[in-house]
Amino acid sequence: MRKKLNIGLFGFGCVGNGLYEVLNQSELLDATIKRIVVKNKNKERKIPQENFSFDKSDILLGNDINVVVELIDDANAAYLIVSEALKRGKHAVTANKKMLAENLKELTQLAKENKVSLLYEASVAGSIPIIRNLEEYYNNDSLSGIKGIVNGTCNYILTQTNVGKDYETALQEAKELGFAESDPTLDVDGFDSKFKLVLLIKHAFGLTLNPEKVFNYGIRHLKGQDVRYATEKGYRLKLFSRAEKVGNKLVGFVAPHFIAEDNAAFNVNNEFNAVTVEALFSDKQLFLGKGAGAYPTASAVLSDISALQYDYAYEYKKSQSSEYITYTEDFFLKIYVGSEFMETIQEIPFYKIDEVFQSKSYNFQTGWVKFSELRKFNFNQLNDLFFAVLPDAFLSEEQFSKEGEEHLFLHVFNS
Amino acid sequence: MRKKLNIGLFGFGCVGNGLYEVLNQSELLDATIKRIVVKNKNKERKIPQENFSFDKSDILLGNDINVVVELIDDANAAYLIVSEALKRGKHAVTANKKMLAENLKELTQLAKENKVSLLYEASVAGSIPIIRNLEEYYNNDSLSGIKGIVNGTCNYILTQTNVGKDYETALQEAKELGFAESDPTLDVDGFDSKFKLVLLIKHAFGLTLNPEKVFNYGIRHLKGQDVRYATEKGYRLKLFSRAEKVGNKLVGFVAPHFIAEDNAAFNVNNEFNAVTVEALFSDKQLFLGKGAGAYPTASAVLSDISALQYDYAYEYKKSQSSEYITYTEDFFLKIYVGSEFMETIQEIPFYKIDEVFQSKSYNFQTGWVKFSELRKFNFNQLNDLFFAVLPDAFLSEEQFSKEGEEHLFLHVFNS
Repeated sequence: MRKKLNIGLFGFGCVGNGLYEVLNQSELLDATIKRIVVKNKNKERKIPQENFSFDKSDILLGNDINVVVELIDDANAAYLIVSEALKRGKHAVTANKKMLAENLKELTQLAKENKVSLLYEASVAGSIPIIRNLEEYYNNDSLSGIKGIVNGTCNYILTQTNVGKDYETALQEAKELGFAESDPTLDVDGFDSKFKLVLLIKHAFGLTLNPEKVFNYGIRHLKGQDVRYATEKGYRLKLFSRAEKVGNKLVGFVAPHFIAEDNAAFNVNNEFNAVTVEALFSDKQLFLGKGAGAYPTASAVLSDISALQYDYAYEYKKSQSSEYITYTEDFFLKIYVGSEFMETIQEIPFYKIDEVFQSKSYNFQTGWVKFSELRKFNFNQLNDLFFAVLPDAFLSEEQFSKEGEEHLFLHVFNS
Repeated sequence: MRKKLNIGLFGFGCVGNGLYEVLNQSELLDATIKRIVVKNKNKERKIPQENFSFDKSDILLGNDINVVVELIDDANAAYLIVSEALKRGKHAVTANKKMLAENLKELTQLAKENKVSLLYEASVAGSIPIIRNLEEYYNNDSLSGIKGIVNGTCNYILTQTNVGKDYETALQEAKELGFAESDPTLDVDGFDSKFKLVLLIKHAFGLTLNPEKVFNYGIRHLKGQDVRYATEKGYRLKLFSRAEKVGNKLVGFVAPHFIAEDNAAFNVNNEFNAVTVEALFSDKQLFLGKGAGAYPTASAVLSDISALQYDYAYEYKKSQSSEYITYTEDFFLKIYVGSEFMETIQEIPFYKIDEVFQSKSYNFQTGWVKFSELRKFNFNQLNDLFFAVLPDAFLSEEQFSKEGEEHLFLHVFNS
């Protein structure tokens, strides 16, 4: 029943190196790394130089290789490797969320056509087996929503701002700890979280979304006053990759959220990741673990390799019924907007205002906005404003208009 | 590929009823409840009387039934149903942890011989897919330990005592909320947690343990002073079903634990369940969800039914290498013992004492004891004493004797 796996490995950074060590120490696996292809000929590595090759065809054309594991950074190069591997009838395992999210339709099609598996558990939330659980365990329960804290860099920064540090200090610390890249844009502007969201949506709800069309807003413009608002209300800030059903349609985006203490994600701190799955019957469930790091990521890769021994492949069962669900941006949500300038806040079209606070140094406003209008702003580029989603449930247009006759109330303070 | 499933259901209590509703609302499943066998002829039920039968052979001898779902309370009757179903070539799905733990070896053997599946995700931690994850996802990673909060009744009581209620008040509340049975012995003395532990150990470490040989101590004798000790140290009390490797052997038991805030289980409150999985590479992971209730349990049963459509069966991969691990009671652990009577505490053989507190009304002592000696006490019957495990790591005999020459220090207070 078990297959002997001969692995061709691309990349020998910390995850590749972790995989090498993990694989050597695992007792239960009949798998060997046959060849390792790397780019840089002169880099010093932990194992002897003769293990390495520099020509990708040594793996891709190797008839003895039946599994390609891709652990390089460059999304374009990764795409070429993975698509070529699948075409040549080799299983592929990858952790590259950007590459996957941008090419999901084509790659899953290629895998199907060539009767091989494309597995990528490590691409979302590191060691947390969320893709596998969505695929296998939640394949019948009616999922209503999913909320992921899937970027450890942002969660570290948000946790630290919560104990009084300012954004820049916390970001600097994250860099020193190796959590953040020297250019942190992909993390702090929510792109990394968005690529992961696209993968989560595929497995949770069956839809293949183009990441370019999915809204992502990060934490770059968070100010101390925004954190103070959270603290006063008993909230904490988390960057959520969030998808859920509103009426019979699906909404999905990345944005900072204020969450209350009764939310299980409230205590997910620092570099930890967590994914909350909400289902009609099983209720809320939370999966918590390390989202990054050489060993946690390598262990997820290893679990994919192990599954290949039993010919495991994602079945994308939800996609079979995806005709029943469509993606929408037409819904209402309650947000907080903070800014030094009241005029900046007033540029956002609010349908109903709950609170307004004005002072010389800072202003904020909370209330209901329409997502399709909100998303037109390029918030990641707006320095003088921060917004976050409040805990209230989303409302469909119909639900919102039912509440239409309610009074608009304002609390205006001048100081 | 998908099989049409014709289900014979035993029991129509809240979980059976939940399953009936969940199955009717699930879109993705080709499964029908063909027959329902119940014991009580005169009970009023939510669906018409003609759906019910009172003779178990209507299901067990029914050639049209290929799946037996057993959701009754009585462990002995459940054993007869499940073993008979397996012998007759029917898949069986059950949530009965006591029955499973007591007959695991025989039942898994029967399933194997008759080439059918015996699935029981709902038996441990309700909606949390822990068995499936141990089976499928952690099948290669070297698991080092598992800690489960798997009894919602106890966790509810412990959470409430933590906010100042006494044990009896909290227990009474749990009964009123429907969390606790009128005779709460199985829950509060840790038997339910032990049956679940036996199942967790089977899937995590491959060992089949006789539940009678596994130590279980519950929370019945918890006093306000013990809670105060926890609060002063920043700990909270949780009842853990715990198994882990100490040296190259496995230890496992049920007992109250003081845990610190950095433990992810610290914030698992009230009726919630959680299981922490510690693995060599993926690090700590926590699965959180509702451990009981009609819908959460029914959704786990449904997930098993769904898996049967694809001929899923547990493979017990860890059991294949179980010759490499043996169960031991020879290890040292650090505990807290509290009692009104110092003499009662002094009956416990301590190898090293860390703290002693004495007063007129209450006394406690912390320090290192040998588990094989500790477990000889019938603590569930000892009214005037409460013990709990402290956060320090377990030590093998060898590790403990290395530390042997350390000084024994006492803090004695008289007041």
